[in-house]
Amino acid sequence: MSTPSLQETYFPHMRCFGCGPDNPDGLRLRSYPGPTEDAPTTASFTPAPHHDNGLGFLNGGIIATLLDCHSASAVVHTAHLRDWGPEEGVPLPYVTAGLDVRYLRPTPLEQPVALTAEVLHASYDAVTAQVRLSVDDKVRAEALTEWKRWRAR
Amino acid sequence: MSTPSLQETYFPHMRCFGCGPDNPDGLRLRSYPGPTEDAPTTASFTPAPHHDNGLGFLNGGIIATLLDCHSASAVVHTAHLRDWGPEEGVPLPYVTAGLDVRYLRPTPLEQPVALTAEVLHASYDAVTAQVRLSVDDKVRAEALTEWKRWRAR
Repeated sequence: MSTPSLQETYFPHMRCFGCGPDNPDGLRLRSYPGPTEDAPTTASFTPAPHHDNGLGFLNGGIIATLLDCHSASAVVHTAHLRDWGPEEGVPLPYVTAGLDVRYLRPTPLEQPVALTAEVLHASYDAVTAQVRLSVDDKVRAEALTEWKRWRAR
Repeated sequence: MSTPSLQETYFPHMRCFGCGPDNPDGLRLRSYPGPTEDAPTTASFTPAPHHDNGLGFLNGGIIATLLDCHSASAVVHTAHLRDWGPEEGVPLPYVTAGLDVRYLRPTPLEQPVALTAEVLHASYDAVTAQVRLSVDDKVRAEALTEWKRWRAR
């Protein structure tokens, strides 16, 4: 049996398009903690042919989805370690408020991409994280993500 | 017969995940020019149930994909009007270099979203655009996108 991912650990029944374990039509990203509490979380994702950007590379929207959802794994893991769980009646402690993606070079479509994410600043109300997507040890895209505490309206 | 979209006009055989007319497994976003050359391009998109963010709203990665691809329609249309076509051997004049998304409020999953995009600055080498996603006349997310001329490597 394989090690449970952070998504399977913290929200096994989530139906998020990017990282919900319970969305058979989603990307089902699986992220893992690093060797120490402060180490970046990691993930590998294998694109499907229909994730093309039309130029034979990985689509920028799929890249943005992976960066957003993989950074979520670092944010939720950090929240768990600090005992900053979700508010009553909501399934997640934080939601994305900002996602600033830089596309540095084309990302191949035919091989797995590697993701790393780490929390830069964290408070109970807001977290920022940095996340990178690489192939062949070259960073192809990176993002700064801003997260705000999710409160039911 | 319906009016051809900007995507069907400029790249009918593109297989981009977000806006390629020729990608049956993609989102197939269809965007239209405004009433004047400088008016924002517009689009409507109806989410699928699996585009959930896990909280019953539209996933942020799908939103980022729509913002990126819809802003492409404004950029490609502007390039066409200025006769700044693609370089020899490549299908598109520009590719996304930066995508800075702000998520302002949750986006419902069960109704169509409206998109508008306009070019803020344009030169032959680089274009910036602003794009917004609204439901019920409330802006749910917006982005500044940066585009660089696409040159074959």
